Amino acid sequence: MSAQLNRQFLLAQRPVGLPSRDTFSYVETPLGEPAAGQILVKNLYLSLDPAMRGWMNDAKSYIPPVGLGEVMRALGVGQVIASQHPDFAVGDHVNGAVGVQDYFLGEPKGFYKVDPSRAPLPLYLSALGMTGMTAYFALLDVGAPKAGDTVVISGAAGAVGSIAGQIARIKGCRVVGIAGGQEKCRFLIDELGFDGAIDYKSEDVAAGLKRECPKGVNVFFDNVGGDILDAVLTRLAPKARVVICGAISQYNNKEAVKGPANYLALLVNRARMEGFVVMDYAAQFADAAREMAGWMAEGKLKSKEDIVEGLTTFPEALLKLFSGENFGKLVLKV
Amino acid sequence: MSAQLNRQFLLAQRPVGLPSRDTFSYVETPLGEPAAGQILVKNLYLSLDPAMRGWMNDAKSYIPPVGLGEVMRALGVGQVIASQHPDFAVGDHVNGAVGVQDYFLGEPKGFYKVDPSRAPLPLYLSALGMTGMTAYFALLDVGAPKAGDTVVISGAAGAVGSIAGQIARIKGCRVVGIAGGQEKCRFLIDELGFDGAIDYKSEDVAAGLKRECPKGVNVFFDNVGGDILDAVLTRLAPKARVVICGAISQYNNKEAVKGPANYLALLVNRARMEGFVVMDYAAQFADAAREMAGWMAEGKLKSKEDIVEGLTTFPEALLKLFSGENFGKLVLKV
Repeated sequence: MSAQLNRQFLLAQRPVGLPSRDTFSYVETPLGEPAAGQILVKNLYLSLDPAMRGWMNDAKSYIPPVGLGEVMRALGVGQVIASQHPDFAVGDHVNGAVGVQDYFLGEPKGFYKVDPSRAPLPLYLSALGMTGMTAYFALLDVGAPKAGDTVVISGAAGAVGSIAGQIARIKGCRVVGIAGGQEKCRFLIDELGFDGAIDYKSEDVAAGLKRECPKGVNVFFDNVGGDILDAVLTRLAPKARVVICGAISQYNNKEAVKGPANYLALLVNRARMEGFVVMDYAAQFADAAREMAGWMAEGKLKSKEDIVEGLTTFPEALLKLFSGENFGKLVLKV
Repeated sequence: MSAQLNRQFLLAQRPVGLPSRDTFSYVETPLGEPAAGQILVKNLYLSLDPAMRGWMNDAKSYIPPVGLGEVMRALGVGQVIASQHPDFAVGDHVNGAVGVQDYFLGEPKGFYKVDPSRAPLPLYLSALGMTGMTAYFALLDVGAPKAGDTVVISGAAGAVGSIAGQIARIKGCRVVGIAGGQEKCRFLIDELGFDGAIDYKSEDVAAGLKRECPKGVNVFFDNVGGDILDAVLTRLAPKARVVICGAISQYNNKEAVKGPANYLALLVNRARMEGFVVMDYAAQFADAAREMAGWMAEGKLKSKEDIVEGLTTFPEALLKLFSGENFGKLVLKV
């Protein structure tokens, strides 16, 4: 029997601007066997996240960069097909940093089991995975919305934004989403129950904010940065909270990041802008996932996945995150 | 007897960039008598503050702009020389928005009495006035320093910065000041007891921060904005607090404000940037002033005034705030 092959995308070079196929090298490597303490996982679904762009930079961050020549980091779910680790058995489904490849072989550091009979596997990468945890803790802990607050979400039809907005609705807030295109805006209102939507592709965001947020913005949940952040800063209500969850408009900049020129609105409004790293809340993930699963069962929380098929489409699939093309949680079916 | 004259500076036009003599019209107006509920105050010292630049703009803020043709707003201390108000008697010394003029005539809204036997009058405009209140509440309430924290102050030799830094020292912090010129830096260390100083005129601020803040910056008290804010953002410690007290580098911009390009350091470090308006703490001013007066009596807190003489020098004196020339609290002796 010939050795089984593992298709892998390695980080070949650190991209300047948008990543491309040349950012990665595609290799096929013979598959090994788990040593003591290791597991072998057949990867089923990979989570494609804006954070991956940051991991490609050689910069100090909350997590080390991916090394050149290393398998590109990705969260994912898969099934254990061989194990030398006491906590994981063949057949178990697991969630962890499995990498952009067919198989993960190694120590299951940070891996945990998921149950495919309770929810479809892609859901463990969206509402019930890191995406949902990000939305939940960034909104509730950093944004601290109160019932009656006006909450604005940028990237609202994206993976994190669509969940954050629904949680804000559950908490009794008026929720306004900013998204690109009529289809996404209709989805926010008709499917997710947002109170208002602003289509940044077809209308002036400042005018839309004035229309949709007559009392100002109490919480801004920002996934986008750039001009949209600046526009929202001009509409802050006193004591507003700006949650910096991401800044996808800036991740592929070749020049310096565009800082928010209107940041002095924080001064005038005694407002706060605060960053967020989801791993700080790891000890509370299980409770949050249980609460979110309950909301899903009650029909209060919906999750939309945008599933792309085929490991080898990875470099192009990733770009959907930055073109504004994707809609919901972007998942790569291996 | 000819009518007594009141020399006044009115706001003649809204400046673009730096204000100049043409920003104001100088007039001499016959002095009136107080009507019921009014007082007449002989102004003695005026407080010159960066905030005055903002009041000249026709922009929504925490306080209405000065109207064209109105006396330029200024805080100050003076002595009541005529009164039709039950709470104020001839001879009382008062602190309030007296305006850039020899005499204030009107209702004493927001005015309060000060005692010249307890402290020299200029001190009621610096450590024991709005300047001191700003330093005290912005640092302690928004910055929330803990003993052992590294606190960095920009505009550290200025009125607010020099007091904020000393309060941070009193609270057991390591305090590093950023100021322009060797004389100011020596003053911070030798006179005010700062632990370190960075001369932005003669050294690279980023390199200075690396040297003086080996464990990162826990609290940044920013009076300056612009490049210095960006430099400090790169040195934030996890969970750092950035107090936006002012942004004097940006007040006279003719182009858009320079937003902090490194604001995503907030995300990576789960840090917070928060604005501040001192009037929110008015109910606590008396207690704070008492505590600060105690620190001054113990020699733990020093106040430095930069006193310029002559009402008619006002337009040029004001510019010292923006040139980096002034040192301590800028006060105009009428």
